[in-house]
Amino acid sequence: MNEDTNPHISIDCVIFGFDFEKLNVLLLERRLEHEDPSIAFCDQSLVGQHIKLKESLDDAAARILFETTGLTNIYLEQFYAFGAPDRLNKERAKIWLKSIGRDPAVQVITIGYFSLVNTNTVQVSYNPRHASWCDVKKVENLAFDHDQILKKGLEALRLKIKSEPIAFELLPQKFTLSQLQKLYEVVLDINIDKRNFRKKALQSDYIVALSEKQKDVLHKPAQLFMFSREIYKATKKEDFSFNFK
Amino acid sequence: MNEDTNPHISIDCVIFGFDFEKLNVLLLERRLEHEDPSIAFCDQSLVGQHIKLKESLDDAAARILFETTGLTNIYLEQFYAFGAPDRLNKERAKIWLKSIGRDPAVQVITIGYFSLVNTNTVQVSYNPRHASWCDVKKVENLAFDHDQILKKGLEALRLKIKSEPIAFELLPQKFTLSQLQKLYEVVLDINIDKRNFRKKALQSDYIVALSEKQKDVLHKPAQLFMFSREIYKATKKEDFSFNFK
Repeated sequence: MNEDTNPHISIDCVIFGFDFEKLNVLLLERRLEHEDPSIAFCDQSLVGQHIKLKESLDDAAARILFETTGLTNIYLEQFYAFGAPDRLNKERAKIWLKSIGRDPAVQVITIGYFSLVNTNTVQVSYNPRHASWCDVKKVENLAFDHDQILKKGLEALRLKIKSEPIAFELLPQKFTLSQLQKLYEVVLDINIDKRNFRKKALQSDYIVALSEKQKDVLHKPAQLFMFSREIYKATKKEDFSFNFK
Repeated sequence: MNEDTNPHISIDCVIFGFDFEKLNVLLLERRLEHEDPSIAFCDQSLVGQHIKLKESLDDAAARILFETTGLTNIYLEQFYAFGAPDRLNKERAKIWLKSIGRDPAVQVITIGYFSLVNTNTVQVSYNPRHASWCDVKKVENLAFDHDQILKKGLEALRLKIKSEPIAFELLPQKFTLSQLQKLYEVVLDINIDKRNFRKKALQSDYIVALSEKQKDVLHKPAQLFMFSREIYKATKKEDFSFNFK
């Protein structure tokens, strides 16, 4: 560990990727080479590192994401701090930490950040740690307590996508209602009734029907819509509604 | 600082108190005695301390709240980690830290927890640090970065009270709709249209009208209601709604 690193605080980034079919998460390889194959292993982990001395948490999260994956300018939101005293106590975690010169007995608090990106528009270019997109539903046995961090990050993402219009950032500027519905279905892992969804979408003032239709599609072209941030802000209701999610 | 204390991580608790009139926050005195009155001061701060070695964040939050105020069994929810490198850089903060033997140059990450309690049912009994309830609207110039932590805690409370039925924990088991409305008005700092509020409340299945009315009141007794957690859980809609808050 470098001298300018804070050994007590780390950041873990849960980078969700939506590809119009499923929800993915960006994972790194955590490989321990050893001549004895019963000791060698290759685990997967979230994108994480320690913060530097005198570095803010947000700056550290952006730096770590860039250094590990080459990704920049990605929205990152802090969602939770994890500090269980036994969070680094898995046998492999201890072996790994010792192999990189760290003391597994030192308690490390890690701050979780999450993000949601369109996997089709984002290239994981610089990739020394073999970053790759994995189907969230198939991920298990991550290093350290990263299964728990992923679970909590997914809860944070779901709360966010239900309470703020972040979904539209992931769609093309002009989208179909089927694309919008698919996004919510994939992220929330639910089936949504098509008629009901269309009705609600058409009732909102800020999802605006265009006179354009899809082009270059094999099926019957569907109507296109746009999200208007101006209308959303101007019509946002501050009033309370008994609409607990 | 004790040897068993983690000097890098602290907890700050934003304890909100609702008294049916206004929203309060529990503050401590931070007093520096000094023969030179230009150096002596008495600031106010949130309820906070460092965590102990090998202590989980949740355990630390509960312990710190108890040790400082005598309060136990209070729901505490983590909401944000604060780690700006200059967060302890106020002149008074540095004087205070030196006076208790701490190095202001050491970066401390603090994890914020919030809670909402009914000030009328909670006694701040054990009170060596002069804990007292202060009107949130009148609080300013708190120690360290506690103004910012309070602001963020208030945002977290508002999001929570809009997205989950925590409001009912603060009311008597049988309540009037006016009491419920007042609670939302005070916490969200908005005025709610009475007719609209009653309509929405009556539309929800889980706010159940009783055949009882208020007793021992000087004005015309109002109808009483109860919140049914069973009905809430059984009728909770997982479906998506375009109802961004």
